Amino acid sequence: MSATLEAIGVIRSGFEQRFGTPRQPGLVPAATAVLQLRPPYDEPAALRGLEACSHVWLLFGFHAVAARGWRPTVRPPRLGGNRRLGVFASRSPFRPNGLGLSVVRLQGLLLPPAPCGLRLADHDLLDGTPVYDIKPYLPYADAPPDAQAPAAFAAVPERLPVRFAEAVRPALAAAPAGFEALVRETLALDPRPAYRRGEHGRPHGVQLAGHEVRWMVDEGGVEVLEIRPMAR
Amino acid sequence: MSATLEAIGVIRSGFEQRFGTPRQPGLVPAATAVLQLRPPYDEPAALRGLEACSHVWLLFGFHAVAARGWRPTVRPPRLGGNRRLGVFASRSPFRPNGLGLSVVRLQGLLLPPAPCGLRLADHDLLDGTPVYDIKPYLPYADAPPDAQAPAAFAAVPERLPVRFAEAVRPALAAAPAGFEALVRETLALDPRPAYRRGEHGRPHGVQLAGHEVRWMVDEGGVEVLEIRPMAR
Repeated sequence: MSATLEAIGVIRSGFEQRFGTPRQPGLVPAATAVLQLRPPYDEPAALRGLEACSHVWLLFGFHAVAARGWRPTVRPPRLGGNRRLGVFASRSPFRPNGLGLSVVRLQGLLLPPAPCGLRLADHDLLDGTPVYDIKPYLPYADAPPDAQAPAAFAAVPERLPVRFAEAVRPALAAAPAGFEALVRETLALDPRPAYRRGEHGRPHGVQLAGHEVRWMVDEGGVEVLEIRPMAR
Repeated sequence: MSATLEAIGVIRSGFEQRFGTPRQPGLVPAATAVLQLRPPYDEPAALRGLEACSHVWLLFGFHAVAARGWRPTVRPPRLGGNRRLGVFASRSPFRPNGLGLSVVRLQGLLLPPAPCGLRLADHDLLDGTPVYDIKPYLPYADAPPDAQAPAAFAAVPERLPVRFAEAVRPALAAAPAGFEALVRETLALDPRPAYRRGEHGRPHGVQLAGHEVRWMVDEGGVEVLEIRPMAR
């Protein structure tokens, strides 16, 4: 009753650390990524027809926490971090087999002469994530019309307003297109753990798309204090 | 870039052969099954909170065809069996890593003193399917409102009318509750391969919930000719 998985590809994304990575797809539309296929799965034929789909499922590995194993119960951050749920009633990464599941927006296919892959957006995937399967999203099979999640699960997370300090304008102007939206959408979700949500004025750092971003939360929402390209 | 999966449980279902098993979940509401959890995953705590969910994702293995490996392109039966699609643009079981993904209706939890597990319905899972993960279905994350599949993928399959020959009445009366609905919903989908869809009057057999069911298709739809409990 065991099986071996081989990664068909790997994610290249601007989320280089768990902190700040959206906890579900669909929350940060500005988040773009590439799925690079690996031999022998990098054949254009294996993608034929996929260009017609708006969204795809990715089955992937929670590689950053794989070594930490699973626990029967978890405390999901969206339930405030103080309520224990069964691991199978959660989307926690600390689960048997460490498999993740996300529906992400397909922006296009990468085909020869480029190395084969997918251009993705609106995702929640850490850089370096190994991918084990791609499946087309089929609304008729994948979205049961009468499905209900409990209220605590179902709520779309709140978003805070995000403003940029005067000092970060030059860095924003120098950053690639889409970077400002990525910062705005990521920080609007307040990536801090639930037990820090009451704290105001304390600076935090998050790495996004090759930049170190410093920010804090106050009564008015999120203020971005500093943006610095990271040394490579 | 590889990982080992261990089955957290196994499916016990009335679909004991690939022929006749629905090709997607949600097509045969009368199909019930049990997911039996295996040690060390059979802890009630691991399921805590799941009872509030109407549907769950199952990540499973296509065990019946695992030995046959993958191919870069496939001919999905729903596209008539004559159009080649990339394997990653299909839900074909002949895929790298042989992983399946289905959202199924959760009817209840099995908890001690019973062995731990899930009671499921509306599924498409073969008896003996190894399951690698259970995740709650979260409409806000799993059903992108603007998702579109190409027309050929998106259509809900047609259903044929199903009638029962006089000779099968006693067997139907003796079968367990729900069996008639299971037969009706399964055969309405016409499980024959696309290249046989034009044939009328040819008898076929399918095994369902411990019964051998003989049937044929004619101008009026499906006629069930014979129902016989199988020797165990």
